[in-house]
Amino acid sequence: MRIAIIGASGTLGRAVQAELAKNPQHDIICVGRHHGDLQVDITDDASVDALFAKTGRLDAIIATTGNVFFGPLESMTAEDFNSGLQDKLLGQVRLALKGQHVLNDGGSITLTSGIIADAPIAQGVNATAVNAGLDGFVRAAACELPRGIRINLVSPTMLSESEEAYGSFFPGFESVPAARAAMAFRRSVEGVQSGQVFKVGY
Amino acid sequence: MRIAIIGASGTLGRAVQAELAKNPQHDIICVGRHHGDLQVDITDDASVDALFAKTGRLDAIIATTGNVFFGPLESMTAEDFNSGLQDKLLGQVRLALKGQHVLNDGGSITLTSGIIADAPIAQGVNATAVNAGLDGFVRAAACELPRGIRINLVSPTMLSESEEAYGSFFPGFESVPAARAAMAFRRSVEGVQSGQVFKVGY
Repeated sequence: MRIAIIGASGTLGRAVQAELAKNPQHDIICVGRHHGDLQVDITDDASVDALFAKTGRLDAIIATTGNVFFGPLESMTAEDFNSGLQDKLLGQVRLALKGQHVLNDGGSITLTSGIIADAPIAQGVNATAVNAGLDGFVRAAACELPRGIRINLVSPTMLSESEEAYGSFFPGFESVPAARAAMAFRRSVEGVQSGQVFKVGY
Repeated sequence: MRIAIIGASGTLGRAVQAELAKNPQHDIICVGRHHGDLQVDITDDASVDALFAKTGRLDAIIATTGNVFFGPLESMTAEDFNSGLQDKLLGQVRLALKGQHVLNDGGSITLTSGIIADAPIAQGVNATAVNAGLDGFVRAAACELPRGIRINLVSPTMLSESEEAYGSFFPGFESVPAARAAMAFRRSVEGVQSGQVFKVGY
């Protein structure tokens, strides 16, 4: 399969790349904001168009990227909230909307959520809303995608690699190694399910 | 209680107003885009600020308003998708973020979702995502709101009053009269729960 990983230089993206590389039949294109084989800004229509013009036809598109806003609800502005809508939510949706047209029959799209979708944490209101919105997008898009194209969402708990930096925001949460979360992406790409949320380490 | 209904001139808003008016202790302020006691554009920060400057302190804020994008996934653009994010999702979130500061202790915010959050329909991808995002917002915000302020979401199936116009988009779905959906708003306002989705007619 010809697979593009958008967000390939991040902790999760690198692990997904390593997991998929175990299958010698895959041809993996690493895409990042500044690194990788190709670059893209997922918040920009023209940049995403240019990306898929360069990749050509694909069998799988994986997005392991996108920022959300963290901050207390009491001081949160609509602009703060919108920054996460525009980046992680609309950015990943844009990859799916445009990406559907370069996918071969039976191809797949795999997006990334996170445990905050289901388990709110302090200052995480935007993250919960953005990730829940992605969940809704995937559930609905799975019903409409043509030509056997599938779409799934992977939602890991905190990654062990991120525990030092973010652990204090996740009191009492177990973490999983990125390598374990990466397996769910392989399941989505090489499996047959669609419209699913693969929860890892909940 | 002093209650503002934003979207008061719509089918659902009128029913909510009628239901709450059964309690003679309520003082209801009807707010609309063009009609009502006061006007507001929920997509505009300054307009929402001006609204709450006029209402003064409130005990409950109800939003029964907001548009989403309907159209086939295959031809959907990021701009199409964003129109629903900016209107129904960010519009209701804006009312909540700004509204929290004018609510009295123990006040409440009640937002409106819809059955498409849980049951995708053709051309409804944006509606599912927007409503799912609202669900996430409410679940997380309920954990952070101060001073005993509560927040809930009401998610009705298709309203009987809308069946003639929209019934063909909801094949096999039962409908409920707006008056029945309105009861869930009263439950949210006069009850004690928070972070809930009140599903009506599922």
